[in-house]
Amino acid sequence: MSRITCPTLSQRVTSAAAAAAHISHGDNVAMSGFTGCGYPKAVPGALAERIDAAHAAGDDFSIGLLTGASTSHELDGLLAQSKGVHMRAPFNTDPDMRAAINSGDVEYIDTHLSHLAQQVWFGFYGNLDVAVVEVTAVLPNGLLVPSSSVGNNKTWLDLADKVILEVNSWQPRAFEGFHDVYYGTKLPPNRNPIQILEPTQRIGDPYLHVDPDKVVAIVETNAPDRDNAFAPVDAKSEAMAEHLIDFLRHEVRAGRMPENLLPIQSGVGNVANAVLDGLEHSEFEHLHSYTEVMQDNLLKLIESGKMDSVSATAFSLSREAAEKFNANAEAYKGKILLRTQEMSNHPEIIRRLGLIAINGMVEADIYGNVNSTHVLGAKMINGIGGSGDFARNAFLNFFVSPSTAKDGAISAIVPMASHVDHTEHDVHVIITEQGIADLRGTAPRRRAKKIIDNCAHPDFRDRLHDYTERAWAASAGARHTPHLLDEALSWHQRLRDTGRM
Amino acid sequence: MSRITCPTLSQRVTSAAAAAAHISHGDNVAMSGFTGCGYPKAVPGALAERIDAAHAAGDDFSIGLLTGASTSHELDGLLAQSKGVHMRAPFNTDPDMRAAINSGDVEYIDTHLSHLAQQVWFGFYGNLDVAVVEVTAVLPNGLLVPSSSVGNNKTWLDLADKVILEVNSWQPRAFEGFHDVYYGTKLPPNRNPIQILEPTQRIGDPYLHVDPDKVVAIVETNAPDRDNAFAPVDAKSEAMAEHLIDFLRHEVRAGRMPENLLPIQSGVGNVANAVLDGLEHSEFEHLHSYTEVMQDNLLKLIESGKMDSVSATAFSLSREAAEKFNANAEAYKGKILLRTQEMSNHPEIIRRLGLIAINGMVEADIYGNVNSTHVLGAKMINGIGGSGDFARNAFLNFFVSPSTAKDGAISAIVPMASHVDHTEHDVHVIITEQGIADLRGTAPRRRAKKIIDNCAHPDFRDRLHDYTERAWAASAGARHTPHLLDEALSWHQRLRDTGRM
Repeated sequence: MSRITCPTLSQRVTSAAAAAAHISHGDNVAMSGFTGCGYPKAVPGALAERIDAAHAAGDDFSIGLLTGASTSHELDGLLAQSKGVHMRAPFNTDPDMRAAINSGDVEYIDTHLSHLAQQVWFGFYGNLDVAVVEVTAVLPNGLLVPSSSVGNNKTWLDLADKVILEVNSWQPRAFEGFHDVYYGTKLPPNRNPIQILEPTQRIGDPYLHVDPDKVVAIVETNAPDRDNAFAPVDAKSEAMAEHLIDFLRHEVRAGRMPENLLPIQSGVGNVANAVLDGLEHSEFEHLHSYTEVMQDNLLKLIESGKMDSVSATAFSLSREAAEKFNANAEAYKGKILLRTQEMSNHPEIIRRLGLIAINGMVEADIYGNVNSTHVLGAKMINGIGGSGDFARNAFLNFFVSPSTAKDGAISAIVPMASHVDHTEHDVHVIITEQGIADLRGTAPRRRAKKIIDNCAHPDFRDRLHDYTERAWAASAGARHTPHLLDEALSWHQRLRDTGRM
Repeated sequence: MSRITCPTLSQRVTSAAAAAAHISHGDNVAMSGFTGCGYPKAVPGALAERIDAAHAAGDDFSIGLLTGASTSHELDGLLAQSKGVHMRAPFNTDPDMRAAINSGDVEYIDTHLSHLAQQVWFGFYGNLDVAVVEVTAVLPNGLLVPSSSVGNNKTWLDLADKVILEVNSWQPRAFEGFHDVYYGTKLPPNRNPIQILEPTQRIGDPYLHVDPDKVVAIVETNAPDRDNAFAPVDAKSEAMAEHLIDFLRHEVRAGRMPENLLPIQSGVGNVANAVLDGLEHSEFEHLHSYTEVMQDNLLKLIESGKMDSVSATAFSLSREAAEKFNANAEAYKGKILLRTQEMSNHPEIIRRLGLIAINGMVEADIYGNVNSTHVLGAKMINGIGGSGDFARNAFLNFFVSPSTAKDGAISAIVPMASHVDHTEHDVHVIITEQGIADLRGTAPRRRAKKIIDNCAHPDFRDRLHDYTERAWAASAGARHTPHLLDEALSWHQRLRDTGRM
């Protein structure tokens, strides 16, 4: 049975190529997609072909490209290969797009994920020309059943001059009812409190709305989301997860947290995956999650009954888990909710609910400044994503990384971070496989001792202490965060020059 | 007539020395005070004498000291001179305390002003032993009329084991009715939306509550707040204010802001003062302010009828303006409201109301990272204060500084910030007397051009461009935020070594 049952809109069904013809050089194009889920599968590739043809004819053709967060090769990869993007926001993990960002060809605006939709609405990014949004179905009255991510789609559909829909029949039709799209947003000064009091409370609509007159094309697809598989949990990740879960036990015993903890946010990655795996085997029960992304191990926690509910803005499952979920989606209704990323990452809700925020990092310095985004101060890896939204407003935040990278050549603890995404004012707890540094209520000098002794790899500890002590000795009258400016970035210079810190 | 009309509590009136005797070595002591207003005037000095005596006798005596924000010589200065403080949070401007922080004698925890109260309640700072809070009056039923700042006083009175009150008859008795103390706060996961929909909306109680059994001493004082006078508006400040107000005009014309703007937050300092002075002479009317601090020029805007209302957590007036206000306080009721700093700086409210946030800075780097706190990466000036609370969640934020300091020896625009308090993800607009760099919706490379061309002093522009271009040339494949790690901090090294950048 067709997924498009709206008489008006079913007349707009066309090919991806015909749809892509609605996009012009210089357009600001906002697409769906968050952590490799719910992105359009066909139109971006057709657009890339259109761009290739224009370039072959000697014409300029590039777009400004906005999404929810990361997409996949079919979107970021193909458009980057075609050199068809001049501006990209707010987040990317695709290797071709990353290369284009780091070559300087793409202007990348690395943005807090809760900020982009409102800033586009405020007019900070200019006019939105076209939205390209994947949905699961189009209902008779024109309402849209969202797909495996909500992201910024509400705002894209509201603001774009023209709308292209992709209706993906690979997505389970049973997605209807999984989403909560809040339509109470307004522009300041007319905003109201967001009445979310618990993670899966509904405050919106299960459907996306679109003005049918704006829909210029609908493309039917049947294509899977990106396969978001993780490596199996390794020894280091398991050690970090154990430190973290032990710390939570300690907080419960100290009376600072309820027995079922507080709602958990976990970033995407191996460590977060290991933490969720560790919770599966822990004594904790009736857990909740208020997070961005629904990963395999969150689904497992739901299935095992350890976790009561999850609010996210996107799925990000392995192909295997996705297919299993899709075949049995009804069973999860009421336990999983997908919201707009403006709400999943909203400071108001994060602070109100009191989240436990768990995010990875590239490096932390001795005073607790965290770099989440850059290699050697210059090269973009992925982006800040939601880590700033969550860390700033969480009840308790953790930044987690193995103490070394590249077989011990690189230390995750450095004298001075080469780029700062989370300032010393915002970082509560740092964890490596070596141990845990609880920075709450501590001043920089004490932080340095904890971070070095508990978190740095033993191979780097003496040199870090040596730096800290010499900086102290050389900084009479400037000992809040003593530094040796000549050496502060020397570990990064050495890595650049010798391949080792 | 006595300011203490509660029969039970009036029996606790005693001397400052007797009150200070309730404070012991090692105590965590939480005092009132915010931007030099509403701090206790007598007990800190008596405590300093007690500490001096203990030290003279060879005994250890020091306290952990929490406040709302900055106080005055009578509090921070005297306790620092006595070497009586081992930990200090969240903010300080006193020169003696600053010296003690930078000598390494005081562990200073430089904290977002909206975070401290909740984190103390969460238990992140250990037990709160004693609160010392200035109030205006004690009513017959034990309710307390707050003083010229609210700050964290609600939390201090709630959490401390013992309470010492100072009742300051210099504060106008007519303060009754100026305050809104929200008693709906709870611990996560039981928090509710904060129902502030416009700047001066009331959601709380005009009084502070205290358990009378905890009040161990009350001290009567009659002492003025710190004289918070500013230098007259100079040419540079006037230029920056003009740039900023012109920019607001432009935003209104572009339809991105209502004609009466959005609620204004202005940091403390000469530039903010000049901006408020500039608004006084502008065409804007029916302005509102949702801010931390009520400065002279905000009061003038109220008096002239240009501004309809101000919500803050503290006054910070010149002596002259304070005395004038005190003599005529009734006239301002309903137009000025003082809240707890948890509410004045709350991310939920700041984002909902859509603030225009105006804050000073020490330096910005070419990519838009802002240092608000440190000299040469190491020496603490004051602290981050509320700038992070406001900038992160504002509709639009401005960071403002003269383009040079020390007669042109120091550039406020540098290749790499020596300390980062506001990351490139958070900074919207940078202003110097040279001009304005609108960084919204721009990637790092474009930001660098705008910041250097529009904001850097001409004496430094060529060298900044040279750095930027050489960094670009040397960074093939790492051109998101190109840096020369060997030179990134060289301007600061040169300043350290030669006194000039």
